[in-house]
Amino acid sequence: MYEHYWQQVGEKTTVVIRGWQHMSYFSDVSNICWFLEPELAKEIVRVHRVVGNAVTEGRHIIVGTGSSQLFLAALFALSPRDGPEPVSVVSQAPFYSSYPSMTDCLKSGLYKWAGDAQSYSKEGPYIELVTSPNNPDGNVRRSVVNRSEGTLVHDLAYYWPQYTPISSPADHELMLFTVSKSTGHAGMRIGWALVKDLEVAKRMIKFIELNTIGVSKDSQVRATKVLKAVSDSSEHAGSWEGVESFFKFSYRVMAERWKLLREAVNSSRIFSVPEYPPAHCNFLNRVFEPQPAFAWLKCERDIDDCESFLRGHKILARGGKHFGVSPKYVRVSMLDRDNNFNLFVKRLSTILL
Amino acid sequence: MYEHYWQQVGEKTTVVIRGWQHMSYFSDVSNICWFLEPELAKEIVRVHRVVGNAVTEGRHIIVGTGSSQLFLAALFALSPRDGPEPVSVVSQAPFYSSYPSMTDCLKSGLYKWAGDAQSYSKEGPYIELVTSPNNPDGNVRRSVVNRSEGTLVHDLAYYWPQYTPISSPADHELMLFTVSKSTGHAGMRIGWALVKDLEVAKRMIKFIELNTIGVSKDSQVRATKVLKAVSDSSEHAGSWEGVESFFKFSYRVMAERWKLLREAVNSSRIFSVPEYPPAHCNFLNRVFEPQPAFAWLKCERDIDDCESFLRGHKILARGGKHFGVSPKYVRVSMLDRDNNFNLFVKRLSTILL
Repeated sequence: MYEHYWQQVGEKTTVVIRGWQHMSYFSDVSNICWFLEPELAKEIVRVHRVVGNAVTEGRHIIVGTGSSQLFLAALFALSPRDGPEPVSVVSQAPFYSSYPSMTDCLKSGLYKWAGDAQSYSKEGPYIELVTSPNNPDGNVRRSVVNRSEGTLVHDLAYYWPQYTPISSPADHELMLFTVSKSTGHAGMRIGWALVKDLEVAKRMIKFIELNTIGVSKDSQVRATKVLKAVSDSSEHAGSWEGVESFFKFSYRVMAERWKLLREAVNSSRIFSVPEYPPAHCNFLNRVFEPQPAFAWLKCERDIDDCESFLRGHKILARGGKHFGVSPKYVRVSMLDRDNNFNLFVKRLSTILL
Repeated sequence: MYEHYWQQVGEKTTVVIRGWQHMSYFSDVSNICWFLEPELAKEIVRVHRVVGNAVTEGRHIIVGTGSSQLFLAALFALSPRDGPEPVSVVSQAPFYSSYPSMTDCLKSGLYKWAGDAQSYSKEGPYIELVTSPNNPDGNVRRSVVNRSEGTLVHDLAYYWPQYTPISSPADHELMLFTVSKSTGHAGMRIGWALVKDLEVAKRMIKFIELNTIGVSKDSQVRATKVLKAVSDSSEHAGSWEGVESFFKFSYRVMAERWKLLREAVNSSRIFSVPEYPPAHCNFLNRVFEPQPAFAWLKCERDIDDCESFLRGHKILARGGKHFGVSPKYVRVSMLDRDNNFNLFVKRLSTILL
């Protein structure tokens, strides 16, 4: 859905890289994150200041190959180094479906997936993943375990004004962001972490060194340009050289899509989607209801396997069991191209029992 | 050292990427490696055909965030899934200094570093890493354990004609390459694996999905252009639109540097470097001695800690113990910019006991 916007922006976000540029492993040897392009760091600080969605003062910025790599780096950094057993990693269900498999993929002796944070009762250190707004269900989240030996990772990939009201700058110990959800550039594989503790930051950087020896310079250069355009367009509230602001565009598209989705859901009477409480967004200076990047659909009545049911109606969705909850739920992307989205709501609205 | 060449090539390897291009996670959903750009795959096959350094027929191509990520993907893919204990990972000393820390970083239950392959005598499955030409010492390598339950990973990052004679196309089960050593573009973080077995390839792809959800599209686009230039320049043996061929340039620079290095080593009488047997290179159609990307210096006489000794003479090098051998050895890069390389040989030649 973001392609349209970037086409309107035109050549302002075109990158040109010569054969002899950005050849080195290194970006800035004076920074602990030696593989972070200084211009990208500046635009990250700037976009958070413009949007008001995260505190960057007193934080170390770490770039990653998408926020996935930073999630793994955070697990590595937060695990006790010589613990008697792997530290438990938990998240409130429904949780992002890749957390369990990413955590347990290598059978690490440092950390281990321990499931739904709400039913977690073990003593000792643990890591809680707080995704807010949440993937898959779009709800605003806080930590739920709240014990002294816990450390928190805040995955804020969707904390942008097209998806949810920006009520205040997030101010946590370790926060993750990514261009794939903020600007739509998933193919760049660029994410960043804002980290308060120096030792944690150093361990995360060490992980990225051992994992991929840094992060693509080419994509960092491109992400710099795209984030700059987001900030530039936001600072010219109405129109930016004839182009509307990025968040006005993306807020409008999401609002239209959620309207169409709710109409389709209501007309079918088989499904429901969550209702979200409206809140004031300091950035857009208006009150609105969250309009998440995913539809978290529930099959009502006696349909127990919503994923299979929808597949029978040519709608691809991911079933609730992947997210640690009932198969009556499914997650459907709200960010596809217009044609695919329109086909989805059309098919959904015509399903009858 | 490669910057000079790419400056000569000029705009032919410039990439231009618009804001709306390459936004998706996906490159080719019809390929098992769904995040591999099809044009990059073509240029990988082509450059190996032009140079004659690897067989690509009957191989699956997997792109990675540098060959580091592919090395980890290979460990994941080759480890028995439900073994009673982690599989042993070995390599003949001196071995690449990052192998132990990369392997043991997460205390994986799947694999575990087990040291020098020459002294490895355990029964059961193992993974042997064969780096040829070897990092750090430049020697041509073969597997040394040679037992039935072993699997091999061939790290062929340096098997290019500027470093070593290309005697025949490498034809192993799992081979790793990277642009950082072939064309000098370390900052791209692009490597590739050539993999015979379909199930191993699928597991490697799964690892990259869980690790970084694919590989930067921007860098893949750029690597495509650079590899194309390498092949184009090679096919115009003498001159390619006024520019010499990539391997003629890089072979010549390495030959000059090794001549200067050997002169400096001889004049100091404190050091030695390995002698390499000459061999015929099918690509350059000449006989030459290997001229590795690293100088593997040995401090003779009673200098036991070569790294500290050189640091005292303002030469930064990595000591032998990192590579599993005596601290009388150090590794020094031969690929730095001209000024730094010249300073290195000058300082080396003037060290007197």
